[in-house]
Amino acid sequence: MTETTVDLSALTYDERGLIPAVLQDANSRQVLMVGYMSEETLRRTLEIGQAVFWSRSRGEQWHKGVTSGDYVRVLEVHADCDGDTLLLQVELLGAGICHTGARSCFVEADGETVRIVRA
Amino acid sequence: MTETTVDLSALTYDERGLIPAVLQDANSRQVLMVGYMSEETLRRTLEIGQAVFWSRSRGEQWHKGVTSGDYVRVLEVHADCDGDTLLLQVELLGAGICHTGARSCFVEADGETVRIVRA
Repeated sequence: MTETTVDLSALTYDERGLIPAVLQDANSRQVLMVGYMSEETLRRTLEIGQAVFWSRSRGEQWHKGVTSGDYVRVLEVHADCDGDTLLLQVELLGAGICHTGARSCFVEADGETVRIVRA
Repeated sequence: MTETTVDLSALTYDERGLIPAVLQDANSRQVLMVGYMSEETLRRTLEIGQAVFWSRSRGEQWHKGVTSGDYVRVLEVHADCDGDTLLLQVELLGAGICHTGARSCFVEADGETVRIVRA
């Protein structure tokens, strides 16, 4: 596997100055959540090696785990083809990533029930 | 694995009426791309079992594969904990998903080079 280095300022942020970040468990390959980063919180994420988001609801930086203890170690940050989406390979330092206590935001807290969308 | 059914109209769309959808290869577990769906294109996706997005750049429905032949079969559509993000388990019916020809939008067309973001 070879690497192309993408400059942080060359990424495309939306009209709110944010870029979506998909978090994938580097070991199990489970998709855990999608969060939003500003250039500043992305820089902070790269500096400390832990996920730092921009909370759209609270309008502030959100170092994931500061409240819950469930910090997220960031192993790799990838950009997509047009530089407007990130994929982070991560490792959970706590039990889960979701505010429900679930390992992934795409499953229920029991870890077995998935929310299927029907028309 | 049990299921909770989520009503399509109960999802949360953003101010543009869109919801982000993470596409994951159901077999390899590779994250392929993130696209955006309106309630209408999500309904269409569920009806035909293939990915239909809303193209933000062109401002129109975008049935993935109509131009390239690289259709995407959608096996499952999951909602996250607060219903504002989707995770689709998919199968590629063509060679790749990216306009570059790559299998994933998060790798280069050679399939080996990943775009690493550095501060």
